[in-house]
Amino acid sequence: MTPAEHAELALLLEVAGTPKPGNVDRERDLDDLRFEQFLAGAVGAREGLEAAANGPVGEAFETAVAGMADASGTNTQFGCLLLLTPLVRAAARNDLSPEGVSDVVEATTVEDAAAFYRAFEHTDVAVPDPPAGADALDVRRGADAVSALRERDLTLRDVLELSADRDANAAEWVEGFPRVFRAAARIEAARGPVADRAASAFLELLAEEPDTLVVTEHGEAVAEELQERALGLQAADREEVAAFADDLAERGVNPGTTADLTAAALFVALERGVAVDD
Amino acid sequence: MTPAEHAELALLLEVAGTPKPGNVDRERDLDDLRFEQFLAGAVGAREGLEAAANGPVGEAFETAVAGMADASGTNTQFGCLLLLTPLVRAAARNDLSPEGVSDVVEATTVEDAAAFYRAFEHTDVAVPDPPAGADALDVRRGADAVSALRERDLTLRDVLELSADRDANAAEWVEGFPRVFRAAARIEAARGPVADRAASAFLELLAEEPDTLVVTEHGEAVAEELQERALGLQAADREEVAAFADDLAERGVNPGTTADLTAAALFVALERGVAVDD
Repeated sequence: MTPAEHAELALLLEVAGTPKPGNVDRERDLDDLRFEQFLAGAVGAREGLEAAANGPVGEAFETAVAGMADASGTNTQFGCLLLLTPLVRAAARNDLSPEGVSDVVEATTVEDAAAFYRAFEHTDVAVPDPPAGADALDVRRGADAVSALRERDLTLRDVLELSADRDANAAEWVEGFPRVFRAAARIEAARGPVADRAASAFLELLAEEPDTLVVTEHGEAVAEELQERALGLQAADREEVAAFADDLAERGVNPGTTADLTAAALFVALERGVAVDD
Repeated sequence: MTPAEHAELALLLEVAGTPKPGNVDRERDLDDLRFEQFLAGAVGAREGLEAAANGPVGEAFETAVAGMADASGTNTQFGCLLLLTPLVRAAARNDLSPEGVSDVVEATTVEDAAAFYRAFEHTDVAVPDPPAGADALDVRRGADAVSALRERDLTLRDVLELSADRDANAAEWVEGFPRVFRAAARIEAARGPVADRAASAFLELLAEEPDTLVVTEHGEAVAEELQERALGLQAADREEVAAFADDLAERGVNPGTTADLTAAALFVALERGVAVDD
């Protein structure tokens, strides 16, 4: 399979993995977000993922987000695609490693940053406030922020560095994807259906750091509570994890950034030979 | 979305629909066949589905089957792809109708037939015995049958006509896809999540005719029993259908041809505007 095919499959396996507390999975739809919308989002993102294998990551990301939004009618996998795009590019260059993906990140341009901003116009994304003094660069301004980018000569890497302290996906971008590669190694080492391994990886990632989407939407205390509870469930049976999942669904708490990291880790594991017929 | 994207999404929605008695679905893996293998099969088939939009259906079908088998490690969607390939071609020509797809079928060549035979070399397919006197054309001979095809100047349509009385997919090919278009109209008229509509369409198709894969694998009596029971469940609640599903799973009876027809009907419905965010 090609890197773009593995990336699309990673999106599908991520949403299939269950129980994945707080998120849509094979066994759970949310009130306003259904499993089948994630299937459609993955299909729609494929064209952009193929573009990532061949060209600039910013434009490829925008194409993937536009395709996802058109197919699913909502924002199903924006964060996943932000992580997958440079990883697909690195894999297509036969250098899927922390160094290889850092090379891709370092090579991003102001044009990549402009495409990243345009991507926000295709769908609604929950984002933290911009750093103090960086209102002109608020991603919620979409294409209106592009002139500020050009004036300041900011690349996509520069832009993501600005939010690395409050967005785990941005932190991965600037730090060589450490959590993604570690989770991928755990998926590789595990046994059983790949979607089950993804669900375990999700719970491990949730126990590792507070989910930054939860911080944005519900505050730090809630994110830390989730981390604590995930930590206590590392050796738990499926029923205990399912009870945690029911609780989060009821409260409307969605650790979406942890799902993004899980999808990216699945991609790396698939590239390294993990397969659904293992 | 393009016809190839709709076709891939149809494969994913088909396997997501539940309960779909006897088959893998969102809530059921079989012992030797897992949900995630169908996700991978759909991803792997995409390249062939894109080829179907642009060129000869036989070669596109072979590419789709090879991609499916490579990605899933097994035969997840051979029959679905046989139905989808000419439908994608007709849609790409802006003529997705019984007449439009019949034009595609009538235009098939001996080369399309040869590619169809080669497709059997990529994966294991359960097929009925060939008609009396047609042993040289047994699909289980794979590429070895190609010289017999050429000698007799048989197109892909001709080949499928030979088994139209014992394979519902072949019958659709030569008759203008009547059951597929009827089921698509029912999916269009229904409301609710598309995968739920697919599960209903499956049960209606099962009640309509004996499943020909079940006839091949278990004999006519079993296929007729399934049809009868499906007929009795048309107004049943989810629990009664689920009990039927449990029974078939336990007995290892898999109405796979009915699933093929369901996927094809989903494709037509998606092309006609049905969407996951309806």
